[in-house]
Amino acid sequence: MSSIWTNNLKLSIFGESHGKAIGAVLDNIPAGEEIDFDEILHQMRRRAPGNDVFSTERKEKDIPIILSGVTNRHTTGAPICAIINNEDYDSSDYIVRKNIIPRPGHADYTATVKFDGFNDIRGGGHLSGRLTAPIVFCGAICRQILKRRGISIGAHIASVGQVKDEKFGVKVDEVLLERLSNSTGLCLIKECLKEEFTQEIARYKENGDSIGGTIECAIIGVPAGVGEPIFYGIENIISSLIFSIPGIKGIEFGNGFECSSLSGSQNNDVFFIEENKIATKTNNHGGVLGGISSGMPIVFRVAVKPTPSIMKEQQTINLKTLKEEKINVRGRHDPCIVPRVVPCVEAVAAIAILDILLGDKKFYLGDKNFGNKESTK
Amino acid sequence: MSSIWTNNLKLSIFGESHGKAIGAVLDNIPAGEEIDFDEILHQMRRRAPGNDVFSTERKEKDIPIILSGVTNRHTTGAPICAIINNEDYDSSDYIVRKNIIPRPGHADYTATVKFDGFNDIRGGGHLSGRLTAPIVFCGAICRQILKRRGISIGAHIASVGQVKDEKFGVKVDEVLLERLSNSTGLCLIKECLKEEFTQEIARYKENGDSIGGTIECAIIGVPAGVGEPIFYGIENIISSLIFSIPGIKGIEFGNGFECSSLSGSQNNDVFFIEENKIATKTNNHGGVLGGISSGMPIVFRVAVKPTPSIMKEQQTINLKTLKEEKINVRGRHDPCIVPRVVPCVEAVAAIAILDILLGDKKFYLGDKNFGNKESTK
Amino acid sequence: MSSIWTNNLKLSIFGESHGKAIGAVLDNIPAGEEIDFDEILHQMRRRAPGNDVFSTERKEKDIPIILSGVTNRHTTGAPICAIINNEDYDSSDYIVRKNIIPRPGHADYTATVKFDGFNDIRGGGHLSGRLTAPIVFCGAICRQILKRRGISIGAHIASVGQVKDEKFGVKVDEVLLERLSNSTGLCLIKECLKEEFTQEIARYKENGDSIGGTIECAIIGVPAGVGEPIFYGIENIISSLIFSIPGIKGIEFGNGFECSSLSGSQNNDVFFIEENKIATKTNNHGGVLGGISSGMPIVFRVAVKPTPSIMKEQQTINLKTLKEEKINVRGRHDPCIVPRVVPCVEAVAAIAILDILLGDKKFYLGDKNFGNKESTK
Amino acid sequence: MSSIWTNNLKLSIFGESHGKAIGAVLDNIPAGEEIDFDEILHQMRRRAPGNDVFSTERKEKDIPIILSGVTNRHTTGAPICAIINNEDYDSSDYIVRKNIIPRPGHADYTATVKFDGFNDIRGGGHLSGRLTAPIVFCGAICRQILKRRGISIGAHIASVGQVKDEKFGVKVDEVLLERLSNSTGLCLIKECLKEEFTQEIARYKENGDSIGGTIECAIIGVPAGVGEPIFYGIENIISSLIFSIPGIKGIEFGNGFECSSLSGSQNNDVFFIEENKIATKTNNHGGVLGGISSGMPIVFRVAVKPTPSIMKEQQTINLKTLKEEKINVRGRHDPCIVPRVVPCVEAVAAIAILDILLGDKKFYLGDKNFGNKESTK
Repeated sequence: MSSIWTNNLKLSIFGESHGKAIGAVLDNIPAGEEIDFDEILHQMRRRAPGNDVFSTERKEKDIPIILSGVTNRHTTGAPICAIINNEDYDSSDYIVRKNIIPRPGHADYTATVKFDGFNDIRGGGHLSGRLTAPIVFCGAICRQILKRRGISIGAHIASVGQVKDEKFGVKVDEVLLERLSNSTGLCLIKECLKEEFTQEIARYKENGDSIGGTIECAIIGVPAGVGEPIFYGIENIISSLIFSIPGIKGIEFGNGFECSSLSGSQNNDVFFIEENKIATKTNNHGGVLGGISSGMPIVFRVAVKPTPSIMKEQQTINLKTLKEEKINVRGRHDPCIVPRVVPCVEAVAAIAILDILLGDKKFYLGDKNFGNKESTK
Repeated sequence: MSSIWTNNLKLSIFGESHGKAIGAVLDNIPAGEEIDFDEILHQMRRRAPGNDVFSTERKEKDIPIILSGVTNRHTTGAPICAIINNEDYDSSDYIVRKNIIPRPGHADYTATVKFDGFNDIRGGGHLSGRLTAPIVFCGAICRQILKRRGISIGAHIASVGQVKDEKFGVKVDEVLLERLSNSTGLCLIKECLKEEFTQEIARYKENGDSIGGTIECAIIGVPAGVGEPIFYGIENIISSLIFSIPGIKGIEFGNGFECSSLSGSQNNDVFFIEENKIATKTNNHGGVLGGISSGMPIVFRVAVKPTPSIMKEQQTINLKTLKEEKINVRGRHDPCIVPRVVPCVEAVAAIAILDILLGDKKFYLGDKNFGNKESTK
Repeated sequence: MSSIWTNNLKLSIFGESHGKAIGAVLDNIPAGEEIDFDEILHQMRRRAPGNDVFSTERKEKDIPIILSGVTNRHTTGAPICAIINNEDYDSSDYIVRKNIIPRPGHADYTATVKFDGFNDIRGGGHLSGRLTAPIVFCGAICRQILKRRGISIGAHIASVGQVKDEKFGVKVDEVLLERLSNSTGLCLIKECLKEEFTQEIARYKENGDSIGGTIECAIIGVPAGVGEPIFYGIENIISSLIFSIPGIKGIEFGNGFECSSLSGSQNNDVFFIEENKIATKTNNHGGVLGGISSGMPIVFRVAVKPTPSIMKEQQTINLKTLKEEKINVRGRHDPCIVPRVVPCVEAVAAIAILDILLGDKKFYLGDKNFGNKESTK
Repeated sequence: MSSIWTNNLKLSIFGESHGKAIGAVLDNIPAGEEIDFDEILHQMRRRAPGNDVFSTERKEKDIPIILSGVTNRHTTGAPICAIINNEDYDSSDYIVRKNIIPRPGHADYTATVKFDGFNDIRGGGHLSGRLTAPIVFCGAICRQILKRRGISIGAHIASVGQVKDEKFGVKVDEVLLERLSNSTGLCLIKECLKEEFTQEIARYKENGDSIGGTIECAIIGVPAGVGEPIFYGIENIISSLIFSIPGIKGIEFGNGFECSSLSGSQNNDVFFIEENKIATKTNNHGGVLGGISSGMPIVFRVAVKPTPSIMKEQQTINLKTLKEEKINVRGRHDPCIVPRVVPCVEAVAAIAILDILLGDKKFYLGDKNFGNKESTK
């Protein structure tokens, strides 16, 4: 079992939901990058509960304590470690553990089998959604470095249940992405839909039920020519990281599954020249061809399942007796986790894109116009 | 640029479409595994062109030559290297390269920018779909090792354009998966639909156009408790590998994007006891909870875009003059690559699952019943 | 810059000497391993200053706080993160940094160039010998897991300046290794030499100077057949980790550099049967042939340079003016770091051997006799 | 078992001594680097047998066939795969394998245990010294890329038995390194010693015996500030790779083991200004401080054991009967492998240094003078 991800960036996520602390080590960040701690806190707050009427009422502070790698507001080049203390930390000597009645839709059963029952099951332990907090921390560092190089990232709720927001168009405006990544609660392109989304979630909450949704994310400013074919393409890297967010069940790039019912002549994006730059008229390819960026907005969507913790009695089994039992999941839970997943998706996008850029000499050369140069020999 | 993927298995893919040879090194396969070369050839043949009336007529032989790692029909424990010679190999001393008119929907433009024009552009070079042949080779090795441990893998065409095959149900039969992975051409659950699929593809071919589709894959026999939370879950590993197949634009596990419009009470899979084993009544989770296997069939679907090479004139640009131009893509191309992607998807599934199992002690212990043991302390 | 090491184990080391805290994440440790915290503290104490009259007087407590991965004295399978708070932590808002007069023998100059002057230079920052504390922590976890499987590790000071301890013989006794790894201060095979070693160090201390030495380490109980040829042999893994200890300038296995003046007939270790087990009469090979363990004691020696911080005035330069200057290194420093490096070397050995075993199915099978089985086909 | 090494470069070595072919995949080499095939052949020839009266008479051609990654004499950015066909390839259907009488000093016994007897034992299989040929190939590519950036590498035989060559001094001349890396046979600084070395080897050969030696390698032109503390220092990377060469039993950097008997005031290298550049008066540190280059020559020495294959009868055991037996190792073998290891050591140095540089932005920026810039803030 390892929660260390390594490519150009290296990333270690640790902690258990009710242990002493959770945290992250973000490694291979260049020295001398300015870090705005308020901006980090802002991103942490977006993920934290309590931003709207629906999120769980547990009051976490989620303030990361940076232990290393940053002095004088600049990265030192050494690994950046941050921890977030758990307020629910139980310091009793011996923790009574029983996980004999697995909750449907949760990883209680699978983790118990994997770890032979030694996993910390309190609050989901290392498998808790709480472990996305250190991921958001890492993303908050990465996006500042990207921002300085003209790369913006923003995501919005594309749908909850039957209610849908507008989709990103061919062109994605930096102002829009800034607004999205600055907002808390319901991030929407069409803000006028806020009430409709609120009602959709309320409808499920009232029934003690929950509802799933989709999130759409865009990245602009990535020059053409970064990413790789085969194993380290932009799609590979983003999707290898995106499933670190619990509850995500699918990802699609560009027009995604829709392309399966299109013809080549409908789906191919035509190249043309726009303001002396190479662009495509449509963006079905979502900014990635052959794993490599085209200079067009990188766009992807993810599916988020409904919170498995619901207030209704559910059927399950007793792992000890192997008899069937009923379960009532106690506690208060988000009827829809989609709003809180939005900043996590942006964080993953930031980590993935910085990782890819760090493997590319153009990042260092800082040549912003290389997407247009005549490079045919 | 690296085409070496490393986790528990290590995998190197090399070669260019019109270079001397393409191939793979598959590393960390245990010693003493029996290898059936005919079974490898069978899988290679499924991916090769010429299995139906639609596939390209270029006659590749695609016979892998194993250079190392196998003697006396058994793995030696040393890296397995296999090469596939290219019949289109051009041995002329200096290759005239010009890639100034990028084809829409292809990676011509993005690769040219990335590699500063030094990439081998003939036939797509290292970015060619031909590079899936070594992946199928590796998958063919892995699936034999899995098969011996009771794990079966099969995929079928879930849709082409508007025509849809039946989906896998909650239970997936080993006999069905065997049939799928043994068939060439159009792999379908409902074989009676073959004609309908043929006609759908023909419709686009006649117009000099192409069509996309979706593929569904199932893996059965994986015991509960393998895979990991956060970065090395079953979803992470499969999706990090699946985008090595050109043309795949999305992946979803279990009910995938459908879960976004379901409530928790609809989406949660209820645990129950079936023939003294723990199972779920539905399989919306697709066999994976918290990145870890539940013992239920692992099911995922991918979206395959329509072949970008079409017979119609298309708009593009000239990278040298930066003027707009028309392009007519010559040569004969598959009007639908979905049938040939099916064995590639199975190969990726086999590589991913063996990779995950090699990181799990249960693989070595060979304890087939651990999914049901009482392991709560 | 990355301080994350990954193979079968994954290991992240973070922190700066005068930052908030230093620490480690140890990842991929199996669930259910019992952890004795007192044993960890013992190993930390061996490395900490203050064990003898020579070591620096700075009173560090070096008590690791385990944040995750251990509950109820057992590993949970999740990453084990521990931090050690720095008592010298400077919380002033803006740290005045100047590193314009690099100390000879230190990394002040090289680190300043590498990190463009952004590195935390206080106390050596991330390059400080203090960063061996988290390595000792990780080693303390690993050695407990190895111990339970019959593997013991111990090191001793082989020499300081001109004074030499006895070397390990062909057979290395478990009792001896236990004594070495339990002792603090001067770990010697011939304890009667303690006074002689003390005097040798005192001689240099009195002159405001320092002295180097060598350390010899042995690992017993590793069954034949673990490790790998080429890149992941026992020598590769140990040496790739050993240079994480500042001041180590060389490593040799078995008879090491001595073999360069021997003939094949002198150097070859003859196989024979001893108590029904395959053994060699001599152990010039140091327990490793072709990167793989032979079942004989694994023995290696390292060279440790004299502490570069001395009380004498030294010649150096001013990086700003590029003029030559004199430097007097202030503060109190160990006249000989060799005694404190001993537990670090053992820690590296423990990490390396557990790493190698985790990649070997025999570790899980627990088959203790496989070294002797007839395995020729 | 994996023979894929990954850091900034990725490197796959495959093949067995008497299999169809051996080879390498060298991955992550930038596109557009010019490759001189004659220079590759030259390096291959240096390693190949037959350069002097002593080396084995087996006539290998060792001509690498580049399958991918190079067109028009330039790297394409795709993985570079090269194979070397084995002339001793045995194509008989079923290879009679018996490895019941392990040769002393060889890995026959350890490999048989590791691979459960499935390893290809003919000629040592994957553990054969022949596998250094692909390493030399990779090194030959890397050194050309380094050369273009002003970095030179050369090694010489420092000793064979009791005969010693001169050591590199504080300054290492590019002309000297060029001469060494261009010479075949006995590479010596003091060429007048050639006869003495020849006689030393002849003395052992006549007795049917063999003799060990040491090799010293220098790398010049590496600017200050590359490499890393802790795990990815120049010493860590070189030594993690150097033990891929069979027969190497130790490595030391700078003055190495000698530093163990020096005082700090003797060992510290004083900084001074020489021709407006920062340098040290002595080079005991071997060009590396804190894992990072100082701009001084990087110098290391390795110990090479005597060829274990000797013409004398030796004692061993029968793995089947577990009885002791005598063995006479047949065939003709190098009485001293040191001359053929020299180009292997240079190759490893080239791979290691290019790997480290690829992780450093300065490589791309091409700023040759950064070692001297005033970088203190």
